[in-house]
Amino acid sequence: MANKAQVLYDFTAEPGNNELTVKEGETITITNQNIGGGWIEAQNSRGDVGLVPEDYIELNASPAVGNAAVPDLSFFDAFAPPTASAAASNQVDITGCSFQPDTPETPAPSFTSPDEASNGNDPWSAWNSDPAGNSANNWAAKPEGTETGKAGTPGNWNSSAQGHPQAYQGPDIYPYPCLIDYTGAADDDEWDDEWDDPKSPGGYAESEAGEGGASGRGGAHGSTMKISLNKFPGFSKSGPELYLLSKQPAKGKDKIPIYMGEVGPVWLYPESQLDCIVADPKKGTKMYGLKSYIEYQITPNTTNRPVNHRYKHFDWLYERLLDKFGSAIPIPSLPDKQVTGRFEEEFIKMRMERLQGWMTRMCRHPIVSNSEVFQLFLTYKDEKDWKMGKRKAETDETVRVMIFTTIEPEAPDLDLVEVEQKCEMFSRFTKSMDDGVKDLLNVGQEHWKRCTGALPKEYQRIGKAFQNLSSVFNSSGYQGEATLTDALTAAGKTYEEIAQMVAEQPRKDLHFLMETNNEYKGLLGCFPDTIGVHKAGIEKVKEADKLVATSKISPQDKVTMAKRVSTMSYALQAEMNHFHSNRIYDYNRVMQLYLEEQVKFYETIAEKLKQAHSQFVTM
Amino acid sequence: MANKAQVLYDFTAEPGNNELTVKEGETITITNQNIGGGWIEAQNSRGDVGLVPEDYIELNASPAVGNAAVPDLSFFDAFAPPTASAAASNQVDITGCSFQPDTPETPAPSFTSPDEASNGNDPWSAWNSDPAGNSANNWAAKPEGTETGKAGTPGNWNSSAQGHPQAYQGPDIYPYPCLIDYTGAADDDEWDDEWDDPKSPGGYAESEAGEGGASGRGGAHGSTMKISLNKFPGFSKSGPELYLLSKQPAKGKDKIPIYMGEVGPVWLYPESQLDCIVADPKKGTKMYGLKSYIEYQITPNTTNRPVNHRYKHFDWLYERLLDKFGSAIPIPSLPDKQVTGRFEEEFIKMRMERLQGWMTRMCRHPIVSNSEVFQLFLTYKDEKDWKMGKRKAETDETVRVMIFTTIEPEAPDLDLVEVEQKCEMFSRFTKSMDDGVKDLLNVGQEHWKRCTGALPKEYQRIGKAFQNLSSVFNSSGYQGEATLTDALTAAGKTYEEIAQMVAEQPRKDLHFLMETNNEYKGLLGCFPDTIGVHKAGIEKVKEADKLVATSKISPQDKVTMAKRVSTMSYALQAEMNHFHSNRIYDYNRVMQLYLEEQVKFYETIAEKLKQAHSQFVTM
Repeated sequence: MANKAQVLYDFTAEPGNNELTVKEGETITITNQNIGGGWIEAQNSRGDVGLVPEDYIELNASPAVGNAAVPDLSFFDAFAPPTASAAASNQVDITGCSFQPDTPETPAPSFTSPDEASNGNDPWSAWNSDPAGNSANNWAAKPEGTETGKAGTPGNWNSSAQGHPQAYQGPDIYPYPCLIDYTGAADDDEWDDEWDDPKSPGGYAESEAGEGGASGRGGAHGSTMKISLNKFPGFSKSGPELYLLSKQPAKGKDKIPIYMGEVGPVWLYPESQLDCIVADPKKGTKMYGLKSYIEYQITPNTTNRPVNHRYKHFDWLYERLLDKFGSAIPIPSLPDKQVTGRFEEEFIKMRMERLQGWMTRMCRHPIVSNSEVFQLFLTYKDEKDWKMGKRKAETDETVRVMIFTTIEPEAPDLDLVEVEQKCEMFSRFTKSMDDGVKDLLNVGQEHWKRCTGALPKEYQRIGKAFQNLSSVFNSSGYQGEATLTDALTAAGKTYEEIAQMVAEQPRKDLHFLMETNNEYKGLLGCFPDTIGVHKAGIEKVKEADKLVATSKISPQDKVTMAKRVSTMSYALQAEMNHFHSNRIYDYNRVMQLYLEEQVKFYETIAEKLKQAHSQFVTM
Repeated sequence: MANKAQVLYDFTAEPGNNELTVKEGETITITNQNIGGGWIEAQNSRGDVGLVPEDYIELNASPAVGNAAVPDLSFFDAFAPPTASAAASNQVDITGCSFQPDTPETPAPSFTSPDEASNGNDPWSAWNSDPAGNSANNWAAKPEGTETGKAGTPGNWNSSAQGHPQAYQGPDIYPYPCLIDYTGAADDDEWDDEWDDPKSPGGYAESEAGEGGASGRGGAHGSTMKISLNKFPGFSKSGPELYLLSKQPAKGKDKIPIYMGEVGPVWLYPESQLDCIVADPKKGTKMYGLKSYIEYQITPNTTNRPVNHRYKHFDWLYERLLDKFGSAIPIPSLPDKQVTGRFEEEFIKMRMERLQGWMTRMCRHPIVSNSEVFQLFLTYKDEKDWKMGKRKAETDETVRVMIFTTIEPEAPDLDLVEVEQKCEMFSRFTKSMDDGVKDLLNVGQEHWKRCTGALPKEYQRIGKAFQNLSSVFNSSGYQGEATLTDALTAAGKTYEEIAQMVAEQPRKDLHFLMETNNEYKGLLGCFPDTIGVHKAGIEKVKEADKLVATSKISPQDKVTMAKRVSTMSYALQAEMNHFHSNRIYDYNRVMQLYLEEQVKFYETIAEKLKQAHSQFVTM
């Protein structure tokens, strides 16, 4: 099978991933076309063999292109070198800690959950290079057209909103220093045999390119939403009228009540808070060990029985939750696939920490956590159970704006003016907070860089300079030198210790501040879409008179619309109150943690310096 | 008087000093030739009027050049703007603190002196741009030939070892932030009427250019020494034979004994340590108020009667001490004239602090402090007394290597091998220490820059980000927000306070560490010359047999030479022991001060953060 192929685009190999760097225009020889996952093995003119993305090449003579037409663009389609397997079953710890949010109004029994302050949905890379907030902007999609619009190709549905590995060269700064000296990224995103049930037609297969082209993971939510609405051809592009004029009554068992609490409309919070622990990442391999993936163990506090899921299962859950609740409830994106770890263990730890954060936030949400699809994910009994539930979720019709049909506020209808005011207020607030959070992330990122880069180097140099002076003094031949030289050496070593402390400190405090803000950045990025649905609803109700006059709707429809936009408003208010209560909890908590660690840090330094000081002789 | 002149060299005006920037080749109009001090007032073609150094221009028609032939190159020939006079009589405080060095062997009664750890001889600029150690290297002498070789011109003798203002553009970093917003530098270096007694012929008037051309202030010592030796035409360029073969017996009253102490040869230390306080800088003006100078009040602990001196008097004293003792005792340079203060008050404070340091070090030296010229400087009764003493000092013949004729070790003669070993050891040690000190200065300079620049800015931004988030949260409209927002604001303000603390800290600790090391850098820069004299003596003694064989010297001369080189060695050893004892004291002291302030700094930050932490609610 020595087919020749032309390279269409430059591709730079990730070191240690068995990849081959190729240049546009180069001719390569295909040595193995059956790698799968969007990769082929090829040899260049110098005899080097390695993997190249299929869609980066064009076969000169094409005997059987096979899945070359189905490119998989996932970033972590990387190949773990044999040595990487040794660390595969290492369990990665995450800090567990007590969680007790101040849920508004409804009783909130105490419960525990893993540390969710340390979780987020956007990668560190976003802090670094994406002030606009869409981490996916890092992904300059190339080749053109592969990102979206490949309807029906089985390998494509879960690669939407992804660019190409080539386009992402990794963030300049990764928060963790190197722990292990091999590279390798886990591949758990691509389509494989295990995922054998065909995609339901209600999915994103019909997707078209979103507005503006920036359909990254953050932006995907928005474009996805708009796309979903567009598939109901009887309605205009602004979708909420699907619900506003719907005849469909909600099914009784799906009812989502809203109560009036002290702070205003609130969701019904469960007596006992759902919670889960994401842990024990295990590496599996496929393609004869050439590709690997990570499976996480998720244990809910309800059953205490662990279930296993790969990243792509999380991704499936996210898509389902987004589809079902996204119009009413901001569903934060999953931690980006492109969270980089130059070293596998760190990468796995980081992703798991963020998956934990995402799951915790979903568990904390009274509506999401109570949903059938979320419960399925956490408590499926066996493969059959999982597949059945999966199919059912994918055929759920109470999705997108239709979710409002299930919402029942136990309060009098609101008039349109009030609805509009509330909506405006939330819009302003979320925008301001988004700015504030990004500002903090930016300065935090800079501070991280300084604390792990220039600053400790400087303390180390100060330490070395003291120690150097000490050895010079030691060579003086003068009597009674020892006390000073010992003290100088100790002072020098103290500054070296301080250097290390400074470099390690961000992981102990700034990390959590960054992760929390990063998580909020992701969450806030969902609000424009959620609020947009409401605004569109309000606009539609404002047009109602005209629609009645032109007989597009009946006078009864107008009454129904007003009532339903009131329901939408209650849902938005309940969600905002949920957001606020969580926000107050989260920021109180992370600030406490941050300041506590900062105090410890400065106290430890002071203590060390005090000891160093005591060695000098008082005259 | 509208004479035209050609500009010979580019000259950049110091802002606020009434100067005029001119370019080589430009034609300017002289508007006032009677300014004096090496300056003329001129107008350029655009009509701007300002002062230009006389030696930078060539008069097209030269009616009466006057003192234009006597250029004064002092850097601080700058003109204080009228507003500057307001602050002229401000007294500048320096931190007083107790000083009690561990003098070797001889009893050291306790006494006090102002903080000498805060003094140095080199400007901050040297830390910045001169890793080679000679701060004067910053001074690329221009125009050529003005630095030395102007024998007999009265304005030249105290401008030796100086370059031109133009060549020095000021250090990038000045250790103090701006306190007052006017500029102006004090002029107290130039020749004026007050200095009316003609220079004695024994001075440096006959000087020729030193080796290598780098005759800056640090290097000046070396070249000066060599130059001085060259004026005895009967001897070769290596000078110590002047002493080694001298017939001249030392005068009884000048005897400098050396005793054997525990640490080896030591000087005789006085019962009571001389000390003085340099304080109360007062501004005087001349040239109708256009130029100003600073007069310092120096009060010795012996008479407790203050005397007044201008910088140029210190400079005169330095030249005398260098001439008299430089072959045996490293006389550190005065604080450079080019110590910059962008703001007059800071400049005066800095110079005074360093003059204090220099004086303290001289007072601490048993031989220097006991000398007639030093005593004259500290205790002259009136103008007549001063002038008489001045003339006497300038005609002193027991100078340079002849100082060794006065030294009387009370110990058996050393053999040449031992003399050579000692000399080598001191040479190695001082070189190593010089490297170590410069290393510390370099890293300290960088650290200073970071602590006063990027780091506090970052803390301020963190503080602002917290406060910003607090005001966003305040706008949420959600109940029960106040505790969090108050706490966030407090945390933000705390980080702003930390920013300020960080920026101010170097002045409280690093400054003294830098000044001490800077002072030692200056001192160590003198050793190569002092040790060079010894090495030359040793070489001469090694040649003695040959000289006897060729009848250049008598056998008795050879014996005398061996004895005298032993005396030189005792002197060097006594001086090294003095240096070591002072060094151990100084470094112990400055490290204690540094670490003490660092501990306070970190403790204060921890305390502030603890308070900020306490405002967040525990859940």
